Amino acid sequence: MIQTKPISLEAAASALPELWSPRILGQVNDQYIKVARVEGVFPWHTHDHEDEMFLVLRGALTIGRSEADGGRVTLQPGEFFVVPAGLHHNTSADVETWIALIETTTTLHTGTTVLSQTRSIEEQLG
Amino acid sequence: MIQTKPISLEAAASALPELWSPRILGQVNDQYIKVARVEGVFPWHTHDHEDEMFLVLRGALTIGRSEADGGRVTLQPGEFFVVPAGLHHNTSADVETWIALIETTTTLHTGTTVLSQTRSIEEQLG
Repeated sequence: MIQTKPISLEAAASALPELWSPRILGQVNDQYIKVARVEGVFPWHTHDHEDEMFLVLRGALTIGRSEADGGRVTLQPGEFFVVPAGLHHNTSADVETWIALIETTTTLHTGTTVLSQTRSIEEQLG
Repeated sequence: MIQTKPISLEAAASALPELWSPRILGQVNDQYIKVARVEGVFPWHTHDHEDEMFLVLRGALTIGRSEADGGRVTLQPGEFFVVPAGLHHNTSADVETWIALIETTTTLHTGTTVLSQTRSIEEQLG
């Protein structure tokens, strides 16, 4: 996956037809660069061995963690947060929110749980 | 390096005291998340085995490649570009430009060349 020209994260997010369906835009080393449009609540899940980086482009994203793990954090545009491997978490957005994600090429966005929202890597490559 | 609260890329860039001196803000898997303030021209170099992702936050960043490799590309705010491993490249900015970078934790920002501009990983951790 060799990139030939600059890609706008916001333009790519705006073109997504469906909520909660990440699209892979590029790759840096063993990580995919993705964007997604989200609104509402995404189910709790865990990635046993992989960190997941969230960067908000527009709107606001809340990442839920158990109270013991620090509770909720809400990201505003331009802010990022890394969910470490093994941390049980969910994501939610009160308004339509556009995010970029950096995650290992093998990471399933619903973690070890396969849900109706699960999109395969092939689907994310569009 | 476990993150406890959201980090603003722009706020972190604005706090940097020096040009061309990346600061490590976080880590996702084996990649560091960095910001830098740049202006002027950074020397040509190569990372033999590591891709490098550039995301422009403010200003505009030009990535130089040989004509055979596609020539120059200029990134506007919100745009990213991945320089693949092994590609000889330089970076330049006509105005002060703030960038985020994703690169392997072992990557030296001047690649296989050690220059006066080279900052060790320890220096980048601040």
